[in-house]
Amino acid sequence: MRAQRHAPVFPICEKGRIMKFTGKNITIGKTVSIGKKVKIGDNTIIYDNVIIGDNTLICNDCVIGEPTNSYYYDEGYQNPPTFLGANSLIRSHAIIYAGTKISDHFTSGHRIIIREKTTMGRHCSVGTFCDIQGYSTFGNYCRLHSSVHIGQNSRVGNFVFIYPYAVFLNDPTPPSNSVIGPKIGDYSQVGASSVVFPGIVVGENCLVAAGSVVNKDVASFSVVAGNPARSLCRIEAVRSRERDGSHYPWMLHYEKGMPWAGCGYPEWIKQTNSKP
Amino acid sequence: MRAQRHAPVFPICEKGRIMKFTGKNITIGKTVSIGKKVKIGDNTIIYDNVIIGDNTLICNDCVIGEPTNSYYYDEGYQNPPTFLGANSLIRSHAIIYAGTKISDHFTSGHRIIIREKTTMGRHCSVGTFCDIQGYSTFGNYCRLHSSVHIGQNSRVGNFVFIYPYAVFLNDPTPPSNSVIGPKIGDYSQVGASSVVFPGIVVGENCLVAAGSVVNKDVASFSVVAGNPARSLCRIEAVRSRERDGSHYPWMLHYEKGMPWAGCGYPEWIKQTNSKP
Amino acid sequence: MRAQRHAPVFPICEKGRIMKFTGKNITIGKTVSIGKKVKIGDNTIIYDNVIIGDNTLICNDCVIGEPTNSYYYDEGYQNPPTFLGANSLIRSHAIIYAGTKISDHFTSGHRIIIREKTTMGRHCSVGTFCDIQGYSTFGNYCRLHSSVHIGQNSRVGNFVFIYPYAVFLNDPTPPSNSVIGPKIGDYSQVGASSVVFPGIVVGENCLVAAGSVVNKDVASFSVVAGNPARSLCRIEAVRSRERDGSHYPWMLHYEKGMPWAGCGYPEWIKQTNSKP
Repeated sequence: MRAQRHAPVFPICEKGRIMKFTGKNITIGKTVSIGKKVKIGDNTIIYDNVIIGDNTLICNDCVIGEPTNSYYYDEGYQNPPTFLGANSLIRSHAIIYAGTKISDHFTSGHRIIIREKTTMGRHCSVGTFCDIQGYSTFGNYCRLHSSVHIGQNSRVGNFVFIYPYAVFLNDPTPPSNSVIGPKIGDYSQVGASSVVFPGIVVGENCLVAAGSVVNKDVASFSVVAGNPARSLCRIEAVRSRERDGSHYPWMLHYEKGMPWAGCGYPEWIKQTNSKP
Repeated sequence: MRAQRHAPVFPICEKGRIMKFTGKNITIGKTVSIGKKVKIGDNTIIYDNVIIGDNTLICNDCVIGEPTNSYYYDEGYQNPPTFLGANSLIRSHAIIYAGTKISDHFTSGHRIIIREKTTMGRHCSVGTFCDIQGYSTFGNYCRLHSSVHIGQNSRVGNFVFIYPYAVFLNDPTPPSNSVIGPKIGDYSQVGASSVVFPGIVVGENCLVAAGSVVNKDVASFSVVAGNPARSLCRIEAVRSRERDGSHYPWMLHYEKGMPWAGCGYPEWIKQTNSKP
Repeated sequence: MRAQRHAPVFPICEKGRIMKFTGKNITIGKTVSIGKKVKIGDNTIIYDNVIIGDNTLICNDCVIGEPTNSYYYDEGYQNPPTFLGANSLIRSHAIIYAGTKISDHFTSGHRIIIREKTTMGRHCSVGTFCDIQGYSTFGNYCRLHSSVHIGQNSRVGNFVFIYPYAVFLNDPTPPSNSVIGPKIGDYSQVGASSVVFPGIVVGENCLVAAGSVVNKDVASFSVVAGNPARSLCRIEAVRSRERDGSHYPWMLHYEKGMPWAGCGYPEWIKQTNSKP
């Protein structure tokens, strides 16, 4: 999966021949607040109590502020507030539940589902077919590639990238009433088709290899792989394919869409004088 | 994944501000039979020969009674009958093929696909992005979480819970003309991202751990894990996170949405005087 | 997963009671070229610069020629050409990006997503929920079952079958700027829930067992399994469930939808006087 581009959201060509955003069959609740220069795609519905920041594009056939489960049995149900930040791009056929808070510069693929009480920081992206079950938090600059499944009560740090078919579990003894999600530290990479067990703590700057079944905590700066996942080495031991030496910590060698693009990670850390 | 709530389907607030069920763009075949107090969401299409029980809610953008493959090449094609039980809740964007039989108290997530000749018992739930390929049977009180893939000719017992990205295979020597699905016994739990091989029999009260690749039969009351899956222990050896002692058989410790809620499993068994 | 039928696309019964293809709410760009006897489902949108071959059926709620990412920030954006071959069947809710080239006799499941610069040969099929990230090539007679994820820059030969939740990776040191997809040889089978690592070469006539994590090249005519995947045996050692002897090379024992149906693979090879 090529990293999803954090699309800069410039004005859309109104005169072009592409027939998006023609204004057909859009439904918007009375209590929706829409920022400046927002565009809303055809057939999209925005339910009550949604607030949308400036310059955000919501493509066709989306559902924003989908009522939560209580709607179906509580006569007095009212939609909890939903925040969708500025300068964001929601691709078509997304379903975002009421009670979600998504910060600025968000990008999504198609057909994503984000359930209630999900909080995402700035500059996050969520790929096609992702399924975020809600009650979870994500820091800034997280990237979920396609078809990631995040169980409830997960906590994800900043600059965490999660690859296709990764799944975060939360019930240690299924079925039970325990809902204990994983916790992932800043800068960690969670590989494709990996499984992270309930309550597992993955430290900072880890590399969870594709196909890992992670049923023990992972120490910061370590690489794990296998089923069950075992520690292989420190991340600094993973060689680059693009240059001599190690690729990790990756922030020293990758900057596309990152806040240190142009100046480099060390300089950015110095400027921000802190961790993200 | 928090267990999906078996939503009690009470009347929907007609006066609320939520703009579901506004009656826009609904298409219903002439030979469709619709029960009392059924609600049908906007943009939903119900093809011919569908029977829907009382009090069922079908949300927006669903397709019920999708014609089977024969439709595309058989000029005389007629839709086989489709049954959708009472007191059910189909969330948005479901596709349910003609020739499916789903019993009462069914609940679904979003964007599910259920193909023809699928039979589901009472009180089943099917999560978002599930893909049931048809020609399969499920007992009562089965729960499929998100993104479960069920190959054709699978047989699933009662009270079986299946977790995200689990896949049931049916071709032992791909590609071939053999279609031999797995068989799963009552009360068994099939973990996330597990693979159950064609024709495998998982007994009753088993726990297939997340990430298991199950290529041998699993004896009742056993726990298996790994790739390939190996027997770890009896389920009674799995300790509870919520109390002293074992969590299994889980029916003694979990009752949300189960028929023994309130009275306990032993009493319920005594009352019903039989296995489910 | 039963092999998806390559549906012969006969004329649709216009007089039947099935209410597909009623012509409701179809949007078609000015520069779209549509072949003879093409049918387009309700609510489908076809963007500019799409060419569709004769006798092709595009079902309801599809998006064909979806603008690529550049659309969102390039005022001068124009849709690159999209080719969709003759005698094809696109099931409902597909999203096919502009810049895709799909040859004749294509069949899809529901809700597929195919991104730009994907090239598919003749007689390919792509199952429900597949996610092809683009910049990839497929030969003739490839079958992707449900929920296959193909990372960018993958190269797939002829007669390659890929099973549910298989994922092709392309970033050897995530995140990096390397995009090195796998390469799969003719006739190979890639099992369900398997992971093929970036740049891996799977030879011809291989069998990658379900659940394999393939991080080393696979020699032609070999079977691999496990995490990490190890070579088990030659494919000829895999016994048939349907008759005495080996099932492989499978072309000698399976012909549904294959060009050698009726005459047998050896005769077909003789007639075509070459490999496919």
